[in-house]
Amino acid sequence: MAKLTEIGWDEYSALPLESKKPYLMRLEGDGMPYHTLFAQQFDRALLERLCALANRIRFINKSKEGALYLKNVLAHKRAMLYFSQPSSRTFLSHLAACQLLGITTGSVRDAATSSEFKGESREDSIRTFSSYFDLIIMRSPEQGLAEKMAWELSNSDRPIPILNAGSGKDQHPTQALLDIYTLVRSFEEKGGLDGRTVVFCGDLLRGRTVRSLSYLLTDFDDVRQIFVAPEELRVPDDVIAILKAKGIRYEIRDDLRSAVREADAVYMTRIQDEWDASAGESAKIDTSRFKFGAEELKLLGKDGIIMHPLPRRDEIATCCDRDPRAMYWRQMRNGMWIRSALIAGTFGYERAIMDCGY
Amino acid sequence: MAKLTEIGWDEYSALPLESKKPYLMRLEGDGMPYHTLFAQQFDRALLERLCALANRIRFINKSKEGALYLKNVLAHKRAMLYFSQPSSRTFLSHLAACQLLGITTGSVRDAATSSEFKGESREDSIRTFSSYFDLIIMRSPEQGLAEKMAWELSNSDRPIPILNAGSGKDQHPTQALLDIYTLVRSFEEKGGLDGRTVVFCGDLLRGRTVRSLSYLLTDFDDVRQIFVAPEELRVPDDVIAILKAKGIRYEIRDDLRSAVREADAVYMTRIQDEWDASAGESAKIDTSRFKFGAEELKLLGKDGIIMHPLPRRDEIATCCDRDPRAMYWRQMRNGMWIRSALIAGTFGYERAIMDCGY
Amino acid sequence: MAKLTEIGWDEYSALPLESKKPYLMRLEGDGMPYHTLFAQQFDRALLERLCALANRIRFINKSKEGALYLKNVLAHKRAMLYFSQPSSRTFLSHLAACQLLGITTGSVRDAATSSEFKGESREDSIRTFSSYFDLIIMRSPEQGLAEKMAWELSNSDRPIPILNAGSGKDQHPTQALLDIYTLVRSFEEKGGLDGRTVVFCGDLLRGRTVRSLSYLLTDFDDVRQIFVAPEELRVPDDVIAILKAKGIRYEIRDDLRSAVREADAVYMTRIQDEWDASAGESAKIDTSRFKFGAEELKLLGKDGIIMHPLPRRDEIATCCDRDPRAMYWRQMRNGMWIRSALIAGTFGYERAIMDCGY
Repeated sequence: MAKLTEIGWDEYSALPLESKKPYLMRLEGDGMPYHTLFAQQFDRALLERLCALANRIRFINKSKEGALYLKNVLAHKRAMLYFSQPSSRTFLSHLAACQLLGITTGSVRDAATSSEFKGESREDSIRTFSSYFDLIIMRSPEQGLAEKMAWELSNSDRPIPILNAGSGKDQHPTQALLDIYTLVRSFEEKGGLDGRTVVFCGDLLRGRTVRSLSYLLTDFDDVRQIFVAPEELRVPDDVIAILKAKGIRYEIRDDLRSAVREADAVYMTRIQDEWDASAGESAKIDTSRFKFGAEELKLLGKDGIIMHPLPRRDEIATCCDRDPRAMYWRQMRNGMWIRSALIAGTFGYERAIMDCGY
Repeated sequence: MAKLTEIGWDEYSALPLESKKPYLMRLEGDGMPYHTLFAQQFDRALLERLCALANRIRFINKSKEGALYLKNVLAHKRAMLYFSQPSSRTFLSHLAACQLLGITTGSVRDAATSSEFKGESREDSIRTFSSYFDLIIMRSPEQGLAEKMAWELSNSDRPIPILNAGSGKDQHPTQALLDIYTLVRSFEEKGGLDGRTVVFCGDLLRGRTVRSLSYLLTDFDDVRQIFVAPEELRVPDDVIAILKAKGIRYEIRDDLRSAVREADAVYMTRIQDEWDASAGESAKIDTSRFKFGAEELKLLGKDGIIMHPLPRRDEIATCCDRDPRAMYWRQMRNGMWIRSALIAGTFGYERAIMDCGY
Repeated sequence: MAKLTEIGWDEYSALPLESKKPYLMRLEGDGMPYHTLFAQQFDRALLERLCALANRIRFINKSKEGALYLKNVLAHKRAMLYFSQPSSRTFLSHLAACQLLGITTGSVRDAATSSEFKGESREDSIRTFSSYFDLIIMRSPEQGLAEKMAWELSNSDRPIPILNAGSGKDQHPTQALLDIYTLVRSFEEKGGLDGRTVVFCGDLLRGRTVRSLSYLLTDFDDVRQIFVAPEELRVPDDVIAILKAKGIRYEIRDDLRSAVREADAVYMTRIQDEWDASAGESAKIDTSRFKFGAEELKLLGKDGIIMHPLPRRDEIATCCDRDPRAMYWRQMRNGMWIRSALIAGTFGYERAIMDCGY
């Protein structure tokens, strides 16, 4: 185990992701994360523990007694949701995850209500807010801010954990968790995730969810990855490099229908035109062949599933919404459960919940 | 009992209000609403049950023990307040109603913090948010949105109830509930609401509260309605048509004072100039004779009451505020109690609360 | 004891602060405040009771059982945070203070979500909101608004307490409380606050914290006050007049370093340029010599402490942040504890907490 108090910021931040991992774990040594900063922190063993914990929380919550038990687990903790980038969906999901465990919350949802206008640094703001709370869940357009705050707080006289709910273009680790949870859960009683084929389709260049999920899938056995995208939005080379280095089977195609025929899971994504370098850049791309509709639905196997990180535009036709294979709404709800599991683990309550009488 | 899952949207939405009613009730058949969408859902029997439940909740809440009992009733539920139209008063009232019963809440209070900017449809947004919660309380400028969402959610694989907290110009059913509750409660120990005279004054054309309350009053016996308004803002014909069809006594006048002399309740409303077709349209109307002040106070009977849905401008002079007959602040608080009653009923907790030992 | 119901607003508001004090106490006569409006309400005895209560709450909260006990103390109460002036820090601190005691909260954080756009008076808005809650915590740019609302609510048929979280330029009483608590706590085991030297530095003209703290310190024995500021931002005459009248030792200097050498506590403040009469006025002032950095740190005694109400700009160099004498982050957290103590006292729970078994 490594401690963030024993390494300077410059030295820590220069480490490759793999080497940062041990610094982010709970000092109690139970293998659960303390700070959650990037998807690469999670290996298969940890992912499976979190999925099991999420399943358990979901089950306990079915009865009123169980739900009230859960609401007592972390009723002595308070969390701050610092969302300087607007996102109702991610905000509400984390909020609900906290509420399930009885955590009371405060929030900062935009810069206008913040004191930052008085010339305070963002680090000072977060440090101040942290003094009232036991956990910071933060989303920010600033790449690396969550990581910097994690180091700062661990080196303060009142360390508290940071949960990164999206920072800049690069990391959104709990999105990757909920994607994995949805896959694991969908194939749980059908032989598991190993050996499956996952198709990624859409804007594979700029979606951080694809990057994270692709990485985490390499931890499972023999999961084939097929990438389907317009030429301009192809999966980046560094993602492919990792697959190559790990000896993972992958394919790059430009025909969605052929891929759907072979797919166990189709992961659709929207065009992320908010990252366009020049206005209207994405609009020039022909995306018409990268949409999932009635025809694709016919080609998908009966155990296949359709996923989407949402929000969607027209990548998936609404006529698919009530098909039992459409998993995107349940995927949202899975996000709540897996985030609850992660937070419970962060505070050391995995065993208490797994072993409780409900 | 009718089920929303057994009727398509087009067929359902074409039904007259009266025929929609059975589709909105709890499937458990206890006569409580599941979705609350419009005032016409409530008949006298249901109104009286809700008023009795509100009285009970108010009473139980007086002691600390009682308040803590109530906070446990729905402590296993979570509600989302989706307010895409700003309204602190309605928001806080519903929030407090939830809190009294132990419901934890999340909220979306404006479009800026919503993901909708990413091109998502409003239906998708609400569907997503619904996946984290057990009840959606929504206010929207879009007429019919609450009803559409109710149908959508009832037809999803995770149905949850919708409570309409105001949609467009047309419906604001819990406002009507709190108005009825205030009337019932004010005359509870003075012989009841039957046979009373209710005076409506102000902008009777555009205020949805007048429309709803007028309708619900027809369910009581022999309640006379007097409408006092500037010519341009007279009560609409369809409201009058209902009164005629039901054989209700009503009068249209333009003299507030004569009406006050005969009134048991005077319901004042403000000029709703936010609905002006052209800017300044309302400003041209002479409203000077449609205000309640010191003179009117003298004319009102000693058991008479003054109501107002608030916010007010100058329709009621502040010199009336401390008169015991001024009911508008208590009317606000009544809103909290009756909304608690409605929510408790929605989740099937009417009997538990009525019969509890507090 | 005096009652706000027995004095008209005009007569009350014309009273000097000292004479207003008895009107703001709890009618139960336990010496705790009912409305908290200005720092001058607190005398030494009350300050010491609140500090003891804050210490007790902090201690009880250390164990999960204790924290759950505290969350039950005011679980039957609900508070409204009405912040028409944005301030995340003050907002979150009061929110956390409520949450520690189990109070559920609602909030209005800006004018855009308020009904005020419909032409309602601010008094009506607050009166409406008050009907749903048991306590109003309010922050407003309008000087005197909290006081007016306190009188209004005490004279309504449903009186509830007002806690002033900052009104205009003049009062921010809980900031003064947390400053005193930080001083009392820092010297608690080192012989106490009596006889100490407190240095104020920065914008002493426009910071309301300096004014309040200077006043409260006069209640302790022989606390010397040294004021260090640029000539344009010197401590105002009325503050000095009070010190003179009470025979307090004070000095006005323009050399921070000499003052630090003699200081037990150095209270740094930022330039409050939001009050500049003309744009850029403050920028013309040479403030370079009124900053605390590495050199000043060397001059400060080993038991000395550095305080700052935050947010800071560059008045304190970040290199001081991890020095054990830097008290400003703990000062923030102290704010949460002392506000909890105040709220518990306001509702009459001082003895219950002091005497509980935790």
